[in-house]
Amino acid sequence: MRIEIGHGSGGRLTRELIEKVFLKHFDTPELKPLQDASCISISAESIAITTDSYVIRPRFFPGGNIGKLSICGTVNDLTVSGAIPKYISVGFILEEGLPLEELEKIVESMAETAKRAGVKIVTGDTKVVESGKCDGIYINTTGVGEVVRELSPQNSEPGDVVIVTGYVGDHGTAISLARENFEIETQIKSDCAPLNSLLTPLFELDGLRWMRDPTRGGLATALIEFSESAGVGVKLYEEKIPIREEVKFISEMIGYDPLYLANEGKAVIIVSKKDAERALEILKSHPLGKDAEIIGEVTEDFKGVRLITSIGGERRLELLEEDPLPRIC
Amino acid sequence: MRIEIGHGSGGRLTRELIEKVFLKHFDTPELKPLQDASCISISAESIAITTDSYVIRPRFFPGGNIGKLSICGTVNDLTVSGAIPKYISVGFILEEGLPLEELEKIVESMAETAKRAGVKIVTGDTKVVESGKCDGIYINTTGVGEVVRELSPQNSEPGDVVIVTGYVGDHGTAISLARENFEIETQIKSDCAPLNSLLTPLFELDGLRWMRDPTRGGLATALIEFSESAGVGVKLYEEKIPIREEVKFISEMIGYDPLYLANEGKAVIIVSKKDAERALEILKSHPLGKDAEIIGEVTEDFKGVRLITSIGGERRLELLEEDPLPRIC
Repeated sequence: MRIEIGHGSGGRLTRELIEKVFLKHFDTPELKPLQDASCISISAESIAITTDSYVIRPRFFPGGNIGKLSICGTVNDLTVSGAIPKYISVGFILEEGLPLEELEKIVESMAETAKRAGVKIVTGDTKVVESGKCDGIYINTTGVGEVVRELSPQNSEPGDVVIVTGYVGDHGTAISLARENFEIETQIKSDCAPLNSLLTPLFELDGLRWMRDPTRGGLATALIEFSESAGVGVKLYEEKIPIREEVKFISEMIGYDPLYLANEGKAVIIVSKKDAERALEILKSHPLGKDAEIIGEVTEDFKGVRLITSIGGERRLELLEEDPLPRIC
Repeated sequence: MRIEIGHGSGGRLTRELIEKVFLKHFDTPELKPLQDASCISISAESIAITTDSYVIRPRFFPGGNIGKLSICGTVNDLTVSGAIPKYISVGFILEEGLPLEELEKIVESMAETAKRAGVKIVTGDTKVVESGKCDGIYINTTGVGEVVRELSPQNSEPGDVVIVTGYVGDHGTAISLARENFEIETQIKSDCAPLNSLLTPLFELDGLRWMRDPTRGGLATALIEFSESAGVGVKLYEEKIPIREEVKFISEMIGYDPLYLANEGKAVIIVSKKDAERALEILKSHPLGKDAEIIGEVTEDFKGVRLITSIGGERRLELLEEDPLPRIC
């Protein structure tokens, strides 16, 4: 069975797809009435909203698929904004000819990931385009959450500490390998994971300033943007940044800098010096944060991001013109 | 200037696109910080959320374009759900090679339509895919609104009245003509419009039961779904349904039934007999509702939707297997 144009028509075929694939896996009462909108309730005064379209190529990769990624990405964007993720909407654009079996695998992992992250998929939409007008499947997820902490680059002060929650560059490397046939045997998998259970315990720390999940553009881009918004400098210690040997090796081979490679299950965190050890302890007590490290500090000595290399040299990290590895999310 | 892969990279080109095109037109303070999520506030206890991806072909058509449509569609879905539309997120998927000028026209009309509808565009995302992996531009909009009326098919009772707010089939006909070169000269334009200012005054009527904007599948599909959910029958009087002569003529020529053609600026409304005249009066006082008509009634005499033809015959309207005109939204 394959997706046909009629599956996006709003008629009987659409309804069959909704019932046999979407409702089978997305088992939320809010979704059941299938009206034009769903009703949700939020108890916080302030609500966070975020949207992302996922166009990753290939759609299945070691460690995940476009469906899992679409839930993780949106859950993580809400979390790093100081919010508890609650509800997610899902918009599918499907290409005529997509095997229904693939769609079902994708939907199944969206449902599993949403369950793991404690978010509800509450409303959705499906469009089908002709063969050659999409790359199998594109997914938009929009997430809504309850804001519990106001986080902002402007909160930070010189002396604050930079923490990363684990190894960087895994996702970008895994996608790169899945895409091109480099004939390299490797264990590298995407780190794609929902980070809310790891990060929300940090909300209790007074010294928590800012967080970001360094996806497109990687750790370097996230910190450059932070330093620009905050008007401060960031000093990073190269030897403290957790990067797997395999990622270093492959990056070198194909000419990427792992600091600019996408991550889908990591966060970079700015926290006061006082709360840094406590933050690290909280992170390390969680499986997704066991490799967390303090990798640098906020300074007023300069603007921008400088990397102190293992041999004591300094390298300024600049925003790239464009990503060397497009469509990684 | 054309869209390049780098515009979706998250690097400097993406930032330029955001600043020079998106922020230029989407002038909302919530959007300015460009963090991963935006903060909004909703005062209602119950929040409506809806999502739609727009893949319409062609992207410019008489009466609108994909951008205008993407705002109208989401505003209308919230409104017919009994909500006041408040905030909208926008996710763009752009094809490499799309003229920047076209993107800017689309963004401009999104901004204009949002302003007209009184909704704020608060967060967004841009992805770029390679040439041949999209049809120029796809847009997802997700809308959030304050629920002020609980509307449901189950609210309806036999004797309730069916109202349509104006001529049906204009959008589907306009798209069909814009797509194929039929060499017909016509004035038919898409009815694409935000309906919140037309419909929200109806929320004050106790007898308001249910509303729907009959897009994909048209008036017939909307009412068939209503009758199934409500467990009642709907009797429609063919001669009461406003359909332009040109739409009838073109539909006949190309073999469509205008009752199944998409509308993007119309609503079908179920209201108590008692409040029907008042509803009609409210609708007719608004430019978008001046051609509103009572077109039928809810009955317990049968299930499903029956059309009473002008010569007194009866025709049962059935859900179509698939839409004869795909990608109309």
